Amino acid sequence: MNKNTNLQQENDTEGIRLEKDSLGEQRVPLNAWYGAQTQRAKQNFDITGVPISHFPELIRALAMVKAAAARANHRLGLLTDEKADAIQGACAQLLRGEHHEAFIVDLIQGGAGTSSNMNANEVIANLGLARLGFDKGQYQHLHPNNDVNRSQSTNDVYPTASRLAIVEAAQGLKVAVKELQHSLAAKGVEFADVLKMGRTQMQDAVPMTLGQEFEAFAYNLGEEEARINAACTLLCEVNLGGTAIGTGINAPAGYGEIAVTELADISNLPVTQAGNLIEASYDMGAFVTFSSTLKRLAVKLSKLSNDLRLLSSGPRTGFNEIDLPAMQPGSSIMPGKVNPVIPEAMTQTAFQVIGTDTTITLAAEAGQLQLNAMEPLIVYNLLNNCRILSKSIRMLDQLCIRGIAANREQCDRHVAQSIGIVTALVPHIGYDNASRIAGKALLTGKGVAELVQEEKLLSDDQLSGILSPQNMVRQQG
Amino acid sequence: MNKNTNLQQENDTEGIRLEKDSLGEQRVPLNAWYGAQTQRAKQNFDITGVPISHFPELIRALAMVKAAAARANHRLGLLTDEKADAIQGACAQLLRGEHHEAFIVDLIQGGAGTSSNMNANEVIANLGLARLGFDKGQYQHLHPNNDVNRSQSTNDVYPTASRLAIVEAAQGLKVAVKELQHSLAAKGVEFADVLKMGRTQMQDAVPMTLGQEFEAFAYNLGEEEARINAACTLLCEVNLGGTAIGTGINAPAGYGEIAVTELADISNLPVTQAGNLIEASYDMGAFVTFSSTLKRLAVKLSKLSNDLRLLSSGPRTGFNEIDLPAMQPGSSIMPGKVNPVIPEAMTQTAFQVIGTDTTITLAAEAGQLQLNAMEPLIVYNLLNNCRILSKSIRMLDQLCIRGIAANREQCDRHVAQSIGIVTALVPHIGYDNASRIAGKALLTGKGVAELVQEEKLLSDDQLSGILSPQNMVRQQG
Amino acid sequence: MNKNTNLQQENDTEGIRLEKDSLGEQRVPLNAWYGAQTQRAKQNFDITGVPISHFPELIRALAMVKAAAARANHRLGLLTDEKADAIQGACAQLLRGEHHEAFIVDLIQGGAGTSSNMNANEVIANLGLARLGFDKGQYQHLHPNNDVNRSQSTNDVYPTASRLAIVEAAQGLKVAVKELQHSLAAKGVEFADVLKMGRTQMQDAVPMTLGQEFEAFAYNLGEEEARINAACTLLCEVNLGGTAIGTGINAPAGYGEIAVTELADISNLPVTQAGNLIEASYDMGAFVTFSSTLKRLAVKLSKLSNDLRLLSSGPRTGFNEIDLPAMQPGSSIMPGKVNPVIPEAMTQTAFQVIGTDTTITLAAEAGQLQLNAMEPLIVYNLLNNCRILSKSIRMLDQLCIRGIAANREQCDRHVAQSIGIVTALVPHIGYDNASRIAGKALLTGKGVAELVQEEKLLSDDQLSGILSPQNMVRQQG
Amino acid sequence: MNKNTNLQQENDTEGIRLEKDSLGEQRVPLNAWYGAQTQRAKQNFDITGVPISHFPELIRALAMVKAAAARANHRLGLLTDEKADAIQGACAQLLRGEHHEAFIVDLIQGGAGTSSNMNANEVIANLGLARLGFDKGQYQHLHPNNDVNRSQSTNDVYPTASRLAIVEAAQGLKVAVKELQHSLAAKGVEFADVLKMGRTQMQDAVPMTLGQEFEAFAYNLGEEEARINAACTLLCEVNLGGTAIGTGINAPAGYGEIAVTELADISNLPVTQAGNLIEASYDMGAFVTFSSTLKRLAVKLSKLSNDLRLLSSGPRTGFNEIDLPAMQPGSSIMPGKVNPVIPEAMTQTAFQVIGTDTTITLAAEAGQLQLNAMEPLIVYNLLNNCRILSKSIRMLDQLCIRGIAANREQCDRHVAQSIGIVTALVPHIGYDNASRIAGKALLTGKGVAELVQEEKLLSDDQLSGILSPQNMVRQQG
Repeated sequence: MNKNTNLQQENDTEGIRLEKDSLGEQRVPLNAWYGAQTQRAKQNFDITGVPISHFPELIRALAMVKAAAARANHRLGLLTDEKADAIQGACAQLLRGEHHEAFIVDLIQGGAGTSSNMNANEVIANLGLARLGFDKGQYQHLHPNNDVNRSQSTNDVYPTASRLAIVEAAQGLKVAVKELQHSLAAKGVEFADVLKMGRTQMQDAVPMTLGQEFEAFAYNLGEEEARINAACTLLCEVNLGGTAIGTGINAPAGYGEIAVTELADISNLPVTQAGNLIEASYDMGAFVTFSSTLKRLAVKLSKLSNDLRLLSSGPRTGFNEIDLPAMQPGSSIMPGKVNPVIPEAMTQTAFQVIGTDTTITLAAEAGQLQLNAMEPLIVYNLLNNCRILSKSIRMLDQLCIRGIAANREQCDRHVAQSIGIVTALVPHIGYDNASRIAGKALLTGKGVAELVQEEKLLSDDQLSGILSPQNMVRQQG
Repeated sequence: MNKNTNLQQENDTEGIRLEKDSLGEQRVPLNAWYGAQTQRAKQNFDITGVPISHFPELIRALAMVKAAAARANHRLGLLTDEKADAIQGACAQLLRGEHHEAFIVDLIQGGAGTSSNMNANEVIANLGLARLGFDKGQYQHLHPNNDVNRSQSTNDVYPTASRLAIVEAAQGLKVAVKELQHSLAAKGVEFADVLKMGRTQMQDAVPMTLGQEFEAFAYNLGEEEARINAACTLLCEVNLGGTAIGTGINAPAGYGEIAVTELADISNLPVTQAGNLIEASYDMGAFVTFSSTLKRLAVKLSKLSNDLRLLSSGPRTGFNEIDLPAMQPGSSIMPGKVNPVIPEAMTQTAFQVIGTDTTITLAAEAGQLQLNAMEPLIVYNLLNNCRILSKSIRMLDQLCIRGIAANREQCDRHVAQSIGIVTALVPHIGYDNASRIAGKALLTGKGVAELVQEEKLLSDDQLSGILSPQNMVRQQG
Repeated sequence: MNKNTNLQQENDTEGIRLEKDSLGEQRVPLNAWYGAQTQRAKQNFDITGVPISHFPELIRALAMVKAAAARANHRLGLLTDEKADAIQGACAQLLRGEHHEAFIVDLIQGGAGTSSNMNANEVIANLGLARLGFDKGQYQHLHPNNDVNRSQSTNDVYPTASRLAIVEAAQGLKVAVKELQHSLAAKGVEFADVLKMGRTQMQDAVPMTLGQEFEAFAYNLGEEEARINAACTLLCEVNLGGTAIGTGINAPAGYGEIAVTELADISNLPVTQAGNLIEASYDMGAFVTFSSTLKRLAVKLSKLSNDLRLLSSGPRTGFNEIDLPAMQPGSSIMPGKVNPVIPEAMTQTAFQVIGTDTTITLAAEAGQLQLNAMEPLIVYNLLNNCRILSKSIRMLDQLCIRGIAANREQCDRHVAQSIGIVTALVPHIGYDNASRIAGKALLTGKGVAELVQEEKLLSDDQLSGILSPQNMVRQQG
Repeated sequence: MNKNTNLQQENDTEGIRLEKDSLGEQRVPLNAWYGAQTQRAKQNFDITGVPISHFPELIRALAMVKAAAARANHRLGLLTDEKADAIQGACAQLLRGEHHEAFIVDLIQGGAGTSSNMNANEVIANLGLARLGFDKGQYQHLHPNNDVNRSQSTNDVYPTASRLAIVEAAQGLKVAVKELQHSLAAKGVEFADVLKMGRTQMQDAVPMTLGQEFEAFAYNLGEEEARINAACTLLCEVNLGGTAIGTGINAPAGYGEIAVTELADISNLPVTQAGNLIEASYDMGAFVTFSSTLKRLAVKLSKLSNDLRLLSSGPRTGFNEIDLPAMQPGSSIMPGKVNPVIPEAMTQTAFQVIGTDTTITLAAEAGQLQLNAMEPLIVYNLLNNCRILSKSIRMLDQLCIRGIAANREQCDRHVAQSIGIVTALVPHIGYDNASRIAGKALLTGKGVAELVQEEKLLSDDQLSGILSPQNMVRQQG
């Protein structure tokens, strides 16, 4: 195992310090804020190359949980004023974004999050030691396990912190969705008077306005905020206080309630303690629901993007009803080609979210007895999916939707040529007559109105009333 | 195309009648309640072999929608008293379970549900004709399209009916879940005094009771009713009145509102009209959410089943903490072997639900512009998943959970032998001391208490207090 | 458990017989060819409603395995001539399709296939008893376990039979694919002279012929036969002879080799014994590969179907380059509308296959130690997917592809109007000049050739040579 | 859009240069080896944060394709000696690992890989210009499109390069698998004499050796090399020469054949040109197959990891047949606890691969007409999955498998206590007798042999022969 070689080389230039845990001595870079167990975890897990620090919301959430636990331990007399202050001061530093680079463990990790929790415990202990005037590693004065992790277990800290981190990530996502929704709604207004043909099953159907189409896109996304909020409500039920398996072993009476109250205070989130802590220790239901919520959003975004690509297809051989803004030359070989690159990227992000929902499902299903060891994989994918969705939605909004223009002539031409308007005649001339007219129109190339007039099935006044845009596209309840 | 051959053979014995639609003449079995378009659809789609009639809730839902539409059309003067009565009478027959065998179209079908809608239109028209004293097929007196489908389109009828059908299927599912939950809770009470070791990551952790374990199982499933209800609330928003693409073309002013009110009355469900009918015509969001809800339940059921298989593993070389009832000889070669066949079947059903959630996601993503042509596949899988889940849950409850017995001696032995109880000593002797004792116990085979006494780390009184079951397994807030 | 009620009612009319297994007495319908364990399994598993008899290939495969085992046991002196004859005679009946209705167990079943194996053992024993002149249930003369299952275990019989059944189902699938491929290739020839625009990313690209497009569709599917064959080769490695866990316990020396040789003889398939029987007892690798192969085919079929829907979109507001045959009226409200219902159904089948590939993956992953208890779910889905794919492919071929017509004028018009042909000029006037011309064409609506002539960038001769169809659509190596 | 702000800040310190493409002027960092289109793409796509340079194999593959194309263009007289030398020299630099940091485009990108191709074209052009003595951006002397991309399109370059990159990544994966296989086989030898109970469906079955169990693990993985090779063979069929849509527009006669031959020479891989270039331009079949192959491997690795966790469960309340090496303290609260963290991490990687196979499937299905715009997502996930699998497999091998120890006493005890050995008696005393003995053993706690002796069903000699380990665990053919 050539991992040590890297460390040794580091040591030559930086120096090392020796730490000890239950497996024995472990060398740690002299200036590292983390300690032995973090170092072991880094050596054990070299998989994605994505460290915890990639997701600052997770570090902040860990800091909030540790601060809440310290307050509760302090109130119950289990931590001295000095230690409690040191821990809270260290947590405050992390909340301000300091020293995040010390969270080095890979996000895919065995141990159900123990390495993430210990990374936090060790960094906070060492930051606290510095505040107390001690050197890194002098844990007899502030111990990662006995003090920072007091009354806690990875099995309640990690799920609790992960939930808060995801809730934070979700807030940014909601903002992005809402902005996109507003841009779509603005286009709905802008295109309110553009009459066009609606299509079902890729076949000409009946008229509508381009404004109605974009208004529907906006409405469609407008439903997602409530879904995200509902999923976040489930995430705000935490198992803090349950410790190892939910029985609260090693946490004094009253601790859990206090810790959760403090956490609500620190996080400013409606955090509550789960109704059954044993169940809450292993259950991944809220994560499954949250992932499903992201998947639902992804499905909608992909459908929207596909529609944009259909509507802008052409310019000469496609639907060509709208123009997307040109963001980059479309082809290395075909001059002048401009492609719908932004919706294409949006769809790819959606597919990533949909696929990793399967990953999350597998991980959730793999829980065994009192714990689910696959939780780090779930947390990694949920945080990453929030991130790539937020970024892609902003991309779609700013680099595509806001610049869409309508091709009014093409939309007009489509309505004028279409046979689908025959539908509006059904209540007046019956389905069978209308079918016959439609067939004749397709065969002869004549217009529907012309044929009706020829056959004198309706008076000209009736006909123009029925086929007026106002009649055909009104949206009724 | 040798499809006609089959029909011809049928005709020899049964006779046929000729019907006509916009594609021309079509032969239909003389006594069939369905008509030409149903016959075409049957010939077109021969895929799963599962006809609509496999899901009576779907036929009932179609009948409710048709009856509601008939009432609305009648109130608006678009149907005579006679026609409205005939349609409603026919729908009542379907609601009573009559003539379901006439719904013959395969559940996987192209056309976004048109064939299902037309199957309903034709059967209702012919049943209505019989009530009015006419022969089958004399549609000039009661027309499948002009009368039964009046003011409607497949594109609002089929989604509306599908949603109601799924809501009905969900009610049965909730009952099954609740019964299972009660059986688990009863076992929680029965096993309240069985002390055992909890396990995290398949390794001995700290003590708990078997009762706590089953109580947590019950609690876990108890959360699902609210999830199913929330998903059903979304399903109760329908697009009836939107007709072809949500603009309500061919439905008179006021029709949609009346029809939805009537539907709520007939179905006794809190049905409301969607806020944007264009969006509601193509959006599959509620189905995606409902499928996710089934998936979440499936994940929980699979985890429960896996736990049961772990806890009953053995009898001699496994955990062997519980005995599942023996339902069938376990092996064709190994005498006396009894296998956990019921949880195994439950897990397989769960996997089917999880996999088809991917199917539903793909179908939802494939919507284009004003419609989603893949909706029949979604409806088929959701109805089927409700059914196989309900049946499997009842199987698990009745053939497994209710008969589970605890192996108390084995549970006792595990606690007595375990090193995990050392955890309870941490607040008293510190993490490092406790780690050392744990290592010594593993090496020497001596008990934890014995070693603590040897080292005089705690008094006997302290020790027995800390290690008392009451202390170790209390569940605190 | 009201299951017994059903049985009792049956008994009133039919009579029952009592059988015994290791769990005690079990009532069985008097005339049933199956026995006690089948009856128990039927009562235990009431999930999908799809019995083994839905897949005759599975019954035939079980019969082939039982016949091969009987021959091997006979050759090794473990079965008398009479018993061996009786078993083989019974198997021959099943191979001829007799008594398949006696295979009543649900395809989703716990027990890793034990119930399917016992259903076969019991039916064969009773059929054999009849041949020997005994009554049903007189197993002392021919025993389901001691004789029919001699030297066997469910754990080698069920995987072996399942593999053979899937290989048989795959043969039918290959025929369907090949026929579809031929129809597509025929269209490739028919449309060889239809010049049209190619499209990339839904944007006009460069010219090609419609014949090339269909030829590529055909080529694309032509690759699948080799893939299916490769997957079948893996399936032909069987674990017969491994008995319970692959050690061959209870099978005499030499048995496995003989049994596999006999099975190859009976099945006419290149069956071989797996290289490591312990591994082969639990490994689902070949099923995973086969499912992936079906998924790959499904992805291609869905892409093909989507393309057909795009190319036939319109008739007035879409691409409208081809017409699909009209198979049924397209709409209950829009007269004259004809929808691409056949490709829509094909895509839905593809999505079902793709989703259940996830199911199969989960089941394969859930193997534990020496067996995979989820194998019945895998077998069910693979057999069902072969069936619905075969049927859908035949539907697509016969009801859609063969009737496709080209809209030559529309294709011509598209090429004439397109800017994409500017690409062909790049080697002659450079990418930057060509880009400028393209932009000018889009802005002015003028043709590319016209603009090049205006700017005198190329001589007329050069231009017409470069833009000749022969030059632009030639397919080079 | 605050993207420009970042650039501006950069510019303050570094300076910028102005480049021009068909969309107009674009500012680029003065010293950047890339150009305008790369800069646009970077601004457009800010999604994953993972740039092309994360996968050096993709840059090397792009360089190989560009070098092959340059050679072919040179041989056909389309590039001067100087330009061809400059391009090949630049490619050689990239192959040596130089300037990879200039590949800055996000791996999720719209445009079907155009941005990746243009990033390569621009970097190679600028590196070539430097070799020719010109400044960056003086493309009149060596043009990204006219020279570097000569006779090419993104649509043949990107798929070709992606395939080569994946084939390269697969080689490393095969090495990792083979090393793991060897370690497992070595354990098979080491544990050859450790008799233990086999288990099916989590229930005691019949005896085997621990060596057989690990030998089967090794054999199981040994099958994967052939699968990976088969998938790589498909990947080695490339569409180079097809240019925009497979018709080879703008590539001179003979070019494709020469370019592919040169590519085979440069890459040392058995690269061949696809049989139908139009099909090969859009078909993702080989990627789907490759992803399925990774998924199959992942399923096997997860099953192996799960088995390791089962077999090492305990130490006191589980199976406890093997000890995994302790890699880190297992718990922040439970002293002495050591968890199977390495198999847990392996399983999580497997789940990531399985889930993203769904992503890849969706992307493959989303191809439209002559191209698949989602290919970048496929390539990203395949390269990433190769990487995380390789790293995780090496982790599992080096940090877990090699250090596994057998708990021989526990294995012995399990065999001695087990009832499953009764199976070996079936051929001698019959299935029904054996079942009775098994039941009696379970009830009384007596041993199987003892009970047989009591009932004098077999002589002592017979009994000890039948129950000898040699008899029970022999693996026969």
